[in-house]
Amino acid sequence: MKMLDAGAAEFDRQLSELLTLDMAVSEKVQQTVQDIIRQVRESGDEALVKLTNQLDGRQLASPAGLTVSSEQLAAAAGRLDPLVLQALTESAERIRAYHEQQSQGLVNSWDYQDLLGNRLGQQVRPLQRVGIYVPGGKAAYPSSVLMTAIPARVAGVEELVLCTPVPARVQKVANGTDIDLPGDALLAAAHLAGVSRVFTLGGAQAIAAMAHGTQTIPAVNKIVGPGNAFVTAAKQQLFGQVGIDMIAGPSEVVIVADETANPDWVIQDLFAQAEHDEMAQALLITPSIKLRDAVQAGMPAALAEAGRAEIIGTSLANRGAIIQVADLDQAMAVANRIAPEHLQLAVAEPESLLSKVQCAGAVFLGHATAEVVGDYAAGPSHVLPTAGSARFSSPLGVYDFLSRTSVVQCSPRGAVELNRAAAILARVEGLGAHAAAAENRVKNV
Amino acid sequence: MKMLDAGAAEFDRQLSELLTLDMAVSEKVQQTVQDIIRQVRESGDEALVKLTNQLDGRQLASPAGLTVSSEQLAAAAGRLDPLVLQALTESAERIRAYHEQQSQGLVNSWDYQDLLGNRLGQQVRPLQRVGIYVPGGKAAYPSSVLMTAIPARVAGVEELVLCTPVPARVQKVANGTDIDLPGDALLAAAHLAGVSRVFTLGGAQAIAAMAHGTQTIPAVNKIVGPGNAFVTAAKQQLFGQVGIDMIAGPSEVVIVADETANPDWVIQDLFAQAEHDEMAQALLITPSIKLRDAVQAGMPAALAEAGRAEIIGTSLANRGAIIQVADLDQAMAVANRIAPEHLQLAVAEPESLLSKVQCAGAVFLGHATAEVVGDYAAGPSHVLPTAGSARFSSPLGVYDFLSRTSVVQCSPRGAVELNRAAAILARVEGLGAHAAAAENRVKNV
Repeated sequence: MKMLDAGAAEFDRQLSELLTLDMAVSEKVQQTVQDIIRQVRESGDEALVKLTNQLDGRQLASPAGLTVSSEQLAAAAGRLDPLVLQALTESAERIRAYHEQQSQGLVNSWDYQDLLGNRLGQQVRPLQRVGIYVPGGKAAYPSSVLMTAIPARVAGVEELVLCTPVPARVQKVANGTDIDLPGDALLAAAHLAGVSRVFTLGGAQAIAAMAHGTQTIPAVNKIVGPGNAFVTAAKQQLFGQVGIDMIAGPSEVVIVADETANPDWVIQDLFAQAEHDEMAQALLITPSIKLRDAVQAGMPAALAEAGRAEIIGTSLANRGAIIQVADLDQAMAVANRIAPEHLQLAVAEPESLLSKVQCAGAVFLGHATAEVVGDYAAGPSHVLPTAGSARFSSPLGVYDFLSRTSVVQCSPRGAVELNRAAAILARVEGLGAHAAAAENRVKNV
Repeated sequence: MKMLDAGAAEFDRQLSELLTLDMAVSEKVQQTVQDIIRQVRESGDEALVKLTNQLDGRQLASPAGLTVSSEQLAAAAGRLDPLVLQALTESAERIRAYHEQQSQGLVNSWDYQDLLGNRLGQQVRPLQRVGIYVPGGKAAYPSSVLMTAIPARVAGVEELVLCTPVPARVQKVANGTDIDLPGDALLAAAHLAGVSRVFTLGGAQAIAAMAHGTQTIPAVNKIVGPGNAFVTAAKQQLFGQVGIDMIAGPSEVVIVADETANPDWVIQDLFAQAEHDEMAQALLITPSIKLRDAVQAGMPAALAEAGRAEIIGTSLANRGAIIQVADLDQAMAVANRIAPEHLQLAVAEPESLLSKVQCAGAVFLGHATAEVVGDYAAGPSHVLPTAGSARFSSPLGVYDFLSRTSVVQCSPRGAVELNRAAAILARVEGLGAHAAAAENRVKNV
């Protein structure tokens, strides 16, 4: 792991280099995705079957093989290890409870009367149909189903469509069924979260299908959930034609720790982040030389015992760092500059640091609160802004699944007053027909 | 204007054709924008001076000419026709009052304790710095400054940066100053709305500058406001690296009217929409043959008297239509399918239709409420979702200027329970280091 000193002259440059992430999608990926979107728009299901066979190595004869029935979802839940089903159910309940708290004051329509008797307000409604993308392969996480679908359901979204790829590898081990299925835990999570329809479809073709609709896949209003470079490029290209949650990068944690932190726990929390993939970023910021040295000293032995040690080693070596700071104020200044997805405050008095957080996806307070509880069971969605985007965006939440309509109703007196002002401003802007419409209302209301 | 019948067999196809809008930005524009973004990222101010001279026909010697001082904003307000200043001030106050109502329940941080003693919640904060783009040329609207900046200020955003181009044409008529300035009304609006910094910079280079920051232009967290094809392409390409409000298309209105509607007012309201530009869309949906015929009959004479008659004629001919429906229920079904930016309910009993609105940017109720009041003075922002995007997005509002951070603090007992569930699920997902971190917390908290 790199060692940086926040007091050093070159620190600003070093930190920038550490955070630099080439998020730019290659020209080739962009063009491939453009072509896939065009194929799906023009040929619908036919393109989905062709692309899925070609890209996922499947042998679909018809689009029927893309559909997972609700009976199959329920059956998967029935087959699951009871302990796993219980953990999923408990997590689902906690996620639901959190988002019900979050929804207070957000989901209600409102209006008021001004002094002129005009009525002004806003109607707030859930989106009608939402698409959830869940990656396959290394990152096929049942928890992500709960973390996307439940906030949508709490917002009142009635129809949830989920697409997830089934790679050839899964297809080969499948037996006893002629339909390729994702793992039981993922299907059970969909069942528990109230997902209406599941399709085994992945990549840019899944995003294009949910954006435009095909005979089999219904068009949705908004697409949420993380994905690989092709999925990300498709989300970016279709942004504006369909709602898109965010552009997700590799996962990150910043641990701000003082001398009271347990070095073994800190190491484990850094490892948990680093094991996601080689581009994941785990950073420790501390004013304690004792802690810094203990973490550094303990790491080799811990790494030798860890699973996924190769990924952890690579990500810590390439993108990890311990940043030495003068005090906790400086630690928070550095953390705010990073605007991390996850911020763990492993200090004796986390409360006093909380008020200094300016930009972060999620904050975990105190030694007892490991980031890993946020990945599964605490309640807030684990779909969080990455790569510094906490500067402008928020955890996935109920607010992402609402649409609002402004409401205006003029009283006779209000119509006169408002149109008078409107007419003057329309003339200034050179919009004569606007002015005429307003002036006529002033005269004749 | 086209005449369509919602009962006709070919209506679905006809409506789709009417709504089809080629929002795809041409390959050439995309590449030009890619190149501009690269230049600004690599060369900062130097690129801005070069591009502005080249694309806007200006003769800047240095980046200093891009800055409008706050004294110049105040001076512009002082020079303004008192009637115009009053209309701007009144509108600003109404917009502020509306968004203060909207902010209730949105801007407050919250938390709660669950039964295990865990603390869960969310910190809600305004974005730190927001960029506002205001188009130049035909669509240089002071009202757009109020409609973007005021919701941001109500959300608590402290620093607002505004970029607007000054075309060579304005430069040539300017005298008495060596700095090219936008019109006084626009500068006065910035002054009234509390915009901190104004720059005379436009196009993709303005979006790139606000996204990446240069020596002169500060990097912002989010960019809002409409623009031309280059601005739109830049917003799309930078989406994810910086916050982006929406992808704006041409403006539209749907007027649902019954036999009680005044045909002259309906014509004026259609014209007000159509005058925006040749791609603007004005649609009338009515079950009343009497109204339909009266509107059709009255249009030629009204057009002869209107300003901007050529634009109005072109946009009505190409993209306008009167849609005949069986009843008001069918009218609302068609309106919801369109999901219009503006929906005017010019009927005797608008209240009964309001509950049937599923997708629209803003609704205007009753004969006295012309859409034009929403453009200027009513209160809600006139930055609204276009081209059917009301299906997934909302009027620009206070919610667009907030960022949120999830907060988790485990109690000792809660840490045991949550980590137990997390460990089980992490094992299912094959994330051993996550499981180890969680299991260790279960044992040792």
